[in-house]
Amino acid sequence: MTITITAFERSPDGGKGLARDTRVRWAIEEAGLSYEVRPVSFRAMKEPAHLALHPFGQIPTYEEGDLALFETGAIVLHIAQRHAGLLPDDADARARAITWMFAALSTVEPPILELGNARLLEGSKPWNAERLPLVEDRVRVRLDQLSVRLGDADWLDGAFSAGDLMMVSVLLRLKSSGMLDEYPNLAAYVARGEARPAYQRAFDAQLAVNTGKSSTI
Amino acid sequence: MTITITAFERSPDGGKGLARDTRVRWAIEEAGLSYEVRPVSFRAMKEPAHLALHPFGQIPTYEEGDLALFETGAIVLHIAQRHAGLLPDDADARARAITWMFAALSTVEPPILELGNARLLEGSKPWNAERLPLVEDRVRVRLDQLSVRLGDADWLDGAFSAGDLMMVSVLLRLKSSGMLDEYPNLAAYVARGEARPAYQRAFDAQLAVNTGKSSTI
Repeated sequence: MTITITAFERSPDGGKGLARDTRVRWAIEEAGLSYEVRPVSFRAMKEPAHLALHPFGQIPTYEEGDLALFETGAIVLHIAQRHAGLLPDDADARARAITWMFAALSTVEPPILELGNARLLEGSKPWNAERLPLVEDRVRVRLDQLSVRLGDADWLDGAFSAGDLMMVSVLLRLKSSGMLDEYPNLAAYVARGEARPAYQRAFDAQLAVNTGKSSTI
Repeated sequence: MTITITAFERSPDGGKGLARDTRVRWAIEEAGLSYEVRPVSFRAMKEPAHLALHPFGQIPTYEEGDLALFETGAIVLHIAQRHAGLLPDDADARARAITWMFAALSTVEPPILELGNARLLEGSKPWNAERLPLVEDRVRVRLDQLSVRLGDADWLDGAFSAGDLMMVSVLLRLKSSGMLDEYPNLAAYVARGEARPAYQRAFDAQLAVNTGKSSTI
């Protein structure tokens, strides 16, 4: 059955791979599947046809036959549970890999989203200069803990999994901030993720949509 | 196999059910399982023995034989996938219910956490009075959309599921703010969740730990 996802017609990041369709593209590529993309404009995203697919008016969505899903985490998990390449076979190891997916989305990403809001939505507010370091420190609390847990391992729990896919994707949001450089093992972890051929294909595909050309990374 | 979870020795909310162990207790009760609780002090939470179980030094954790998990979402999903009562049998409906779990944790909860940070961590900052309405409006964006999607349905997608368990748990954090009252269908949805016998048992159990007595709700 054909997989169709939605993505920004023009991504706010101009193709740096931070839009959430990159996470889904990456999972699809790791699983060796093919997919089609339906671009959605900012205006169309808030219209009834798209809201029927995604009640929060965002991208990506995922359609496969009669099944329609939203939420990047749910889509990646759906792909990971039905295809090889993203979750270990052993039931306990599988549950632990899924734990890291939730850790990325529920524990590590929220302070990073708050930092993004501080920069994007409150950048011109009078409190921004004094408040920004507080918000950055909330991110560092999580990076400190994640860095300790990762140690010198390549991935969070054995082989690469959907948990790493999600954690790397979340950490990529910090790349432009320079904060990752404070944690050499996390920076190297993110670089390992980016070096995966499946990530490269996903990155190139979203870049092509946004710039009309392909990456040469 | 015995299920053992960790919970606050003394919850910061004094037993209002907002600590995340309530979500796991609720899932266990919906599945009709029994469990044991190991209380953890704030100090012990940051010590190596607990960090080995939970790298971010939080509660709850979940142990069952050789399996050890952290992250509320992962634990609830683990229980839901292995026992009846929390996910539909049909594969597509199951994927949609899991989507609502992720929507609760990744889309609806982050602005609520940000609001909590604004109140708890920045309540005495000079910018708080001017900033708080901005943060509240970010929460309202999600509540507006969720209220539209729920409409006059009892639950988000057919029968009660782990998706509702998680969404109700996330919305409960707003109860004291009065914001839920702006959305009568969401307030009624949360009340339906709270009225479930499994929720009541979970609430009573965490209350007993924190007050030494049982609820009479």
